[in-house]
Amino acid sequence: MVTEHRPGSSRRSERSRQAILGATRALIAEVGYAKLSIEAIASRAGVGKQTIYRWWPSKGAVVFDAILALSEQSPGEPVALPDTGDLEADLKQVVRATVAEFSDPAFDAPIRALTTELVHDAELAALYEKRVAAPVDEAKKERLRSAQRAGQLRADADLDLVLDLLYAPVFRRWLLRTGPLTAEFADAVVEATVRAFSPAAG
Amino acid sequence: MVTEHRPGSSRRSERSRQAILGATRALIAEVGYAKLSIEAIASRAGVGKQTIYRWWPSKGAVVFDAILALSEQSPGEPVALPDTGDLEADLKQVVRATVAEFSDPAFDAPIRALTTELVHDAELAALYEKRVAAPVDEAKKERLRSAQRAGQLRADADLDLVLDLLYAPVFRRWLLRTGPLTAEFADAVVEATVRAFSPAAG
Repeated sequence: MVTEHRPGSSRRSERSRQAILGATRALIAEVGYAKLSIEAIASRAGVGKQTIYRWWPSKGAVVFDAILALSEQSPGEPVALPDTGDLEADLKQVVRATVAEFSDPAFDAPIRALTTELVHDAELAALYEKRVAAPVDEAKKERLRSAQRAGQLRADADLDLVLDLLYAPVFRRWLLRTGPLTAEFADAVVEATVRAFSPAAG
Repeated sequence: MVTEHRPGSSRRSERSRQAILGATRALIAEVGYAKLSIEAIASRAGVGKQTIYRWWPSKGAVVFDAILALSEQSPGEPVALPDTGDLEADLKQVVRATVAEFSDPAFDAPIRALTTELVHDAELAALYEKRVAAPVDEAKKERLRSAQRAGQLRADADLDLVLDLLYAPVFRRWLLRTGPLTAEFADAVVEATVRAFSPAAG
């Protein structure tokens, strides 16, 4: 994560930070990642370029924080999933939240632009994987390990495969608009995945 | 499908047709869908523009046939999945074939370019769904219905959801390069999906 570049806690710094992240999201949706420039972000946010460079080492770092901010995650703070003891209920809560994010226009446009870029730029994709996806995936796996300890999930389940089954159908429906992206769909995907890795199943 | 625009069966026509489809795949990988022109395809294939317009009504139709040709499907011919009576074995065969296609550079570049376009062009995506995806999905569902009749798949299974679980994980790993795309992965996805919709499971 990029904690070391995080602005100070003064109210004015926080206002600038939010303006920069908002400008970044607006611009990536308008012009795409490739044409996005630090100059344009600074101009749109009403700050100097140096303010941005003081807090972020690169364009990629600003963009990733702008995306993370959408999920109300703070850089450097650990992510945790709900753990009420009921695996299916907890997963429904988080997959429904993902569906709701994808359905939010403020989220859809910048993430669609960034995803297109990741498809063609393997280096950026690796950076995204490390800075954005991996910490969130690790939090999800921690919840799955808790379910394994509680005997609600096969002890030998491949947790990467479990996450693929939980999230890939939602991702693909959103990206290609192949079907309705609803809370009911989220629930159905979770129920099928939990059945697939139930300790009871064949 | 575009049967009515299919070239005649003479050897020379077939050579022209293959040259056009090959040129289309090469060009979409090089310049993307938006910048692809019938002029450029004709020039690369060494045919006149009128030859292309005689057989295909639009740029989209040529591109879709160029993609279908990669899977060795003939336009207008019905698609059918293997049905040996063993659902898991048959699905492994087809999902492994999908993984092999995605791993083929001749397939990867044009499909990656087309997919990017589908993400941003909902109209083209709807056309792709109708001409390319729907007939293949219907063939897959026919195999799943046969499994339902044989008692190998829940009678009340939502077949769109079954297809999402079978194909979305493979699609996402390919598109975002989030993990190894192997025959073993294909098998693991099939096994989990078949378990999820097994008549025996909870």
